[in-house]
Amino acid sequence: MNFASDNTAGVAPEIMIALAKANEGFALGYGNDTWTRRAEQRIADVFNRDVASFLVTTGTACNSLAIAHFAPPWGAVLCHENAHIVTDECGAPEFFGNGIKLVGLPGDDGKIGAAVLKAALDKPQWGAPHHFAPSVLSLSQASEAGTIYRPAEIRELADIAHAHGLIVHMDGARLGNALARLNAPADEATWKAGVDVLSFGATKGGAMAAEAIVFFDKERAAGFDRRRKRGSHLLSKHRFVAAQMEAYLTDDLWLRLARHANTMADRLSDRLAAAGLPPVWPVEANEVFALMSRGVCDRLKAKGAAFYERLPDNLPKGAAVKPDSVLVRLVTSFATTTAEVDEFVAAAGD
Amino acid sequence: MNFASDNTAGVAPEIMIALAKANEGFALGYGNDTWTRRAEQRIADVFNRDVASFLVTTGTACNSLAIAHFAPPWGAVLCHENAHIVTDECGAPEFFGNGIKLVGLPGDDGKIGAAVLKAALDKPQWGAPHHFAPSVLSLSQASEAGTIYRPAEIRELADIAHAHGLIVHMDGARLGNALARLNAPADEATWKAGVDVLSFGATKGGAMAAEAIVFFDKERAAGFDRRRKRGSHLLSKHRFVAAQMEAYLTDDLWLRLARHANTMADRLSDRLAAAGLPPVWPVEANEVFALMSRGVCDRLKAKGAAFYERLPDNLPKGAAVKPDSVLVRLVTSFATTTAEVDEFVAAAGD
Amino acid sequence: MNFASDNTAGVAPEIMIALAKANEGFALGYGNDTWTRRAEQRIADVFNRDVASFLVTTGTACNSLAIAHFAPPWGAVLCHENAHIVTDECGAPEFFGNGIKLVGLPGDDGKIGAAVLKAALDKPQWGAPHHFAPSVLSLSQASEAGTIYRPAEIRELADIAHAHGLIVHMDGARLGNALARLNAPADEATWKAGVDVLSFGATKGGAMAAEAIVFFDKERAAGFDRRRKRGSHLLSKHRFVAAQMEAYLTDDLWLRLARHANTMADRLSDRLAAAGLPPVWPVEANEVFALMSRGVCDRLKAKGAAFYERLPDNLPKGAAVKPDSVLVRLVTSFATTTAEVDEFVAAAGD
Amino acid sequence: MNFASDNTAGVAPEIMIALAKANEGFALGYGNDTWTRRAEQRIADVFNRDVASFLVTTGTACNSLAIAHFAPPWGAVLCHENAHIVTDECGAPEFFGNGIKLVGLPGDDGKIGAAVLKAALDKPQWGAPHHFAPSVLSLSQASEAGTIYRPAEIRELADIAHAHGLIVHMDGARLGNALARLNAPADEATWKAGVDVLSFGATKGGAMAAEAIVFFDKERAAGFDRRRKRGSHLLSKHRFVAAQMEAYLTDDLWLRLARHANTMADRLSDRLAAAGLPPVWPVEANEVFALMSRGVCDRLKAKGAAFYERLPDNLPKGAAVKPDSVLVRLVTSFATTTAEVDEFVAAAGD
Repeated sequence: MNFASDNTAGVAPEIMIALAKANEGFALGYGNDTWTRRAEQRIADVFNRDVASFLVTTGTACNSLAIAHFAPPWGAVLCHENAHIVTDECGAPEFFGNGIKLVGLPGDDGKIGAAVLKAALDKPQWGAPHHFAPSVLSLSQASEAGTIYRPAEIRELADIAHAHGLIVHMDGARLGNALARLNAPADEATWKAGVDVLSFGATKGGAMAAEAIVFFDKERAAGFDRRRKRGSHLLSKHRFVAAQMEAYLTDDLWLRLARHANTMADRLSDRLAAAGLPPVWPVEANEVFALMSRGVCDRLKAKGAAFYERLPDNLPKGAAVKPDSVLVRLVTSFATTTAEVDEFVAAAGD
Repeated sequence: MNFASDNTAGVAPEIMIALAKANEGFALGYGNDTWTRRAEQRIADVFNRDVASFLVTTGTACNSLAIAHFAPPWGAVLCHENAHIVTDECGAPEFFGNGIKLVGLPGDDGKIGAAVLKAALDKPQWGAPHHFAPSVLSLSQASEAGTIYRPAEIRELADIAHAHGLIVHMDGARLGNALARLNAPADEATWKAGVDVLSFGATKGGAMAAEAIVFFDKERAAGFDRRRKRGSHLLSKHRFVAAQMEAYLTDDLWLRLARHANTMADRLSDRLAAAGLPPVWPVEANEVFALMSRGVCDRLKAKGAAFYERLPDNLPKGAAVKPDSVLVRLVTSFATTTAEVDEFVAAAGD
Repeated sequence: MNFASDNTAGVAPEIMIALAKANEGFALGYGNDTWTRRAEQRIADVFNRDVASFLVTTGTACNSLAIAHFAPPWGAVLCHENAHIVTDECGAPEFFGNGIKLVGLPGDDGKIGAAVLKAALDKPQWGAPHHFAPSVLSLSQASEAGTIYRPAEIRELADIAHAHGLIVHMDGARLGNALARLNAPADEATWKAGVDVLSFGATKGGAMAAEAIVFFDKERAAGFDRRRKRGSHLLSKHRFVAAQMEAYLTDDLWLRLARHANTMADRLSDRLAAAGLPPVWPVEANEVFALMSRGVCDRLKAKGAAFYERLPDNLPKGAAVKPDSVLVRLVTSFATTTAEVDEFVAAAGD
Repeated sequence: MNFASDNTAGVAPEIMIALAKANEGFALGYGNDTWTRRAEQRIADVFNRDVASFLVTTGTACNSLAIAHFAPPWGAVLCHENAHIVTDECGAPEFFGNGIKLVGLPGDDGKIGAAVLKAALDKPQWGAPHHFAPSVLSLSQASEAGTIYRPAEIRELADIAHAHGLIVHMDGARLGNALARLNAPADEATWKAGVDVLSFGATKGGAMAAEAIVFFDKERAAGFDRRRKRGSHLLSKHRFVAAQMEAYLTDDLWLRLARHANTMADRLSDRLAAAGLPPVWPVEANEVFALMSRGVCDRLKAKGAAFYERLPDNLPKGAAVKPDSVLVRLVTSFATTTAEVDEFVAAAGD
């Protein structure tokens, strides 16, 4: 019963097979190989556009490199106050961005609202030379609350951002989960909705360590090859990260894996709700947040369930928080089984 | 016939098997797993010391993070003028070091001599506040010329460095090849000879993407966990990089793989010499450098041999350079076969 | 009627005379001169301690260099949410600190309270490797609200900070004003109260461009000479910045100038209060904040008064904010005259 | 007899008077004052072009900020191997440039030759992603050897640089001396010859602390106001640095001061030559380099002459270096007197 994170799962079998297949013969290093070309083509196909893409092995690298490419050192990056880039990356964006500023915005359900974004940008606090210049809007899809932005929401936010001269970045560590839920083509929820650059994650979705920075406007990628190298994120045996991405995007594997994870989250959420533990936020991807008593929480752990508690500092208004309430985050993955879900719910309800 | 680099080889079968085995069940991310503990223990065992070690996926990350940990932003890093850190990493050390200075020293056979190091450190050019402070000596083992430092040489250089307040870093991207040749225990050629921090490479040796920064004095690793994270080099599914390192160090796999590569280099070197193409530098690891005519070079390529030409700007005195001479670098790996070697030599001699 | 800032005043006559006197003969550059030695001695005398001090020409340089010297790149700097370093320096601390994080804390009257600081440090948000490490507490004396910390308050905050391993920095751009009001020796309100490093401002107090970074523990200044040079803040004709500081600290000039500014602020505050415009925060240094109607504000400007409006986003509870209220900041200086004050108040009351 | 540097001189009387005059009344800070507008206009007039200019207090700030504005972090800056930016600024350009690389080129007489520049740029060492990208050519005018580039030389170098996509920066810490010697208008020796951005020094020429970054293409200055602020180089009482620059450029003061310094250098050079101590390099600005015996050198110092010895590592071919030869640098300034020069020569010849 491991719901600690989707990165606690291993690697999808199709991707392990692809790695084994890639291990034949010699191939030039640093991306000068056919696997890389094919992976790039797959990414272009998925997004229905002639993009520039660059593979790395961590999501933090994706986010930091992408943001640094668009924010000048005096740039401010607007994101949700619970966004991974601002809470969990130990300042990697600030390091790669040479001292940029991340500005966390409040927002219900883990999402930034248009009014909040507009108000933040219209504040008189941004003037030169004494203040940061707002430069990037970063949206997490799915969000840290397990919710997702609809294409129309992205469009509205992107329009505001673009009108103020900002670039729109999407942290898509869980983009597969979001798209599987939206049942929308990848292009409609990204560049057609105004996203300029994407951190496209495969690791949480089932790869071993594979992520891509995707520039929807190829021209804007100028210099990025050196930025990646200099960040020490260009792998020498590059074919192996490419092979992961290729397999992930072949025959819709990524969406099938994501759909499974989402289905497990739905099942978990539904059954917990039936057991009196309704989700705190809408379950729209592969994360379920629930308030439970300390007793239930401890019992679950005693029975071997793995999950993290979260600070209950951003709950929806009206959430039923009792004195001993604990907020827990439960993440499903491609590897989660119905048996695990049911065992967890049973243990919670004992 | 691929002699372009040892990173054009794939992954050793033992390591692929280890990856497959690691793909069972769930494991906490970011290094909080048993594979990581075991890999760390293997590293400690290999070096016969209670070290602090950190895994990453590129050699450039190893070097950059290690050096940045010891050089203040106004620190100078002394290395051979052909060292990988100064010629091929696009300024990654300067980036991670917040603007440090790499100072390339000349030296025969790709190695720094004690007299050169001493002279460089004794120059009056280092005074505060107008000048950089020499902070790190970085030695490449094996060197970029395919030669190796003997423990006594390291000791002499390290003593000079330490006497001037510098830290000694070893770029051990090919440490296995060096140790296999030296037939010396890992400790004698590293910390017992004065090395303070090591970039310990497994990728070139046969892994997919696994390198370790090894601090021989654990106390000095304080803060490094955040430095790695912030450099975006902490993998989420960390068990997979750990599994590679564990397998690499199990049952002397790494030394067996290195020995094979070295043997192939010897064979290649011997036969080329017999064919009138003697090595430019002593073949002490898995690299052979040879001068050949443009005609021979082109014929080899036409027959499918892959290798790189190098600028002949640092040849030993007395090297027989003819007007149409080309300097080529030939790298063998764990995957090189005798058939390939013999085919190459035959093609060269046609 | 210029109340826009204390930096709109010119230079105190005593300091102009010192500059003229310093302009005799030749002197070695970069601080190797007798003016610099004397200025350093004055600083040591004022603080009653054998300190290490470094002169620069801007307060932002003082703050940024001092903080960068103590915070690792993954360090968090705790300060009041309205502190100058976080609101008005365009990310200079983040730049000099290679991507550090400034964390603004709330607090009444522009000051950080002990409970708020303790709660911030006790939060579970700081763990390695995913999160910043709290490293520096920065206190503004006087604060951005024109209030001051008493020595006992500094002591309490410093004890909490030190217990958590933080260094205590004081932004003393207006330290003279604070000390003049406290009527306390400089040592009691700085290092004896727990301050480790001070940005000691003379510019706002009456100099042309002279500030000092003061390390109360000399050992901790190691490397700072290179840090300053590399920040491009080591003046070549250094005697002229030293001459300013020397004059500023001779015969208590700095305290006399500060006392005058404070007295003018008191007069302004008292008379405005009598006219129905009481100060929003206690007037403890040389700044008066008042709420006035848009009509009064505009009339004052029309009559030639210079001052800035501030966002009323941090007012004390219970402040009488009417729909058309404007928050204005009025800063007095050594050059402010009673005539100006009275003219302003008369214009406000018309 | 102070020939240590032109920064050992004080401030020209006209500039001291300007400072005193500027000290009247109040003025808004941070450059929002009429002195700054006038200084900017003077600079535009001098260069006969509608430029964007920014004042700072050190030459190192000028160079570092200007270069950082044009070199990406993976950019290489080509300069003479003895250029101040590479030998004496403790890595300030590397710090402001986030880890850029300074590449020193050899060259006779302290100058870069066209062939050397072309060869350096045509080397195959610059490819992405493993190598730095040449981005800026920095020319020192006058050079560190006291020589100057003619407009035609600048034009030739700039054409090569531009053809390779580089920006041309001029370190004009001693531009006045060069222009006084060239007897050419400022525009012809700068932007009309291909210079894109200039570090325009006034401090060495007679100011207290005033330098300007001058962008000949105003569009290219976008963002520079924040870059300066963030580098902590925006003075609050900005009128005082502006007043210096204004006075410096009024009625050709700067050229008159430079002409005097040059004349003193000529006199010194001529008389030393007559005394058997000919200059090592052509005396074209305000610096004289001479080889003398240790005995003469020590005698001069004993008689109170101040000057620096330099490493004789870059002497012209054929320079008569005797075993006990010492290379000394003698710098004249606006404040040097003929009496001092004659006294020095007399002491040398005793």
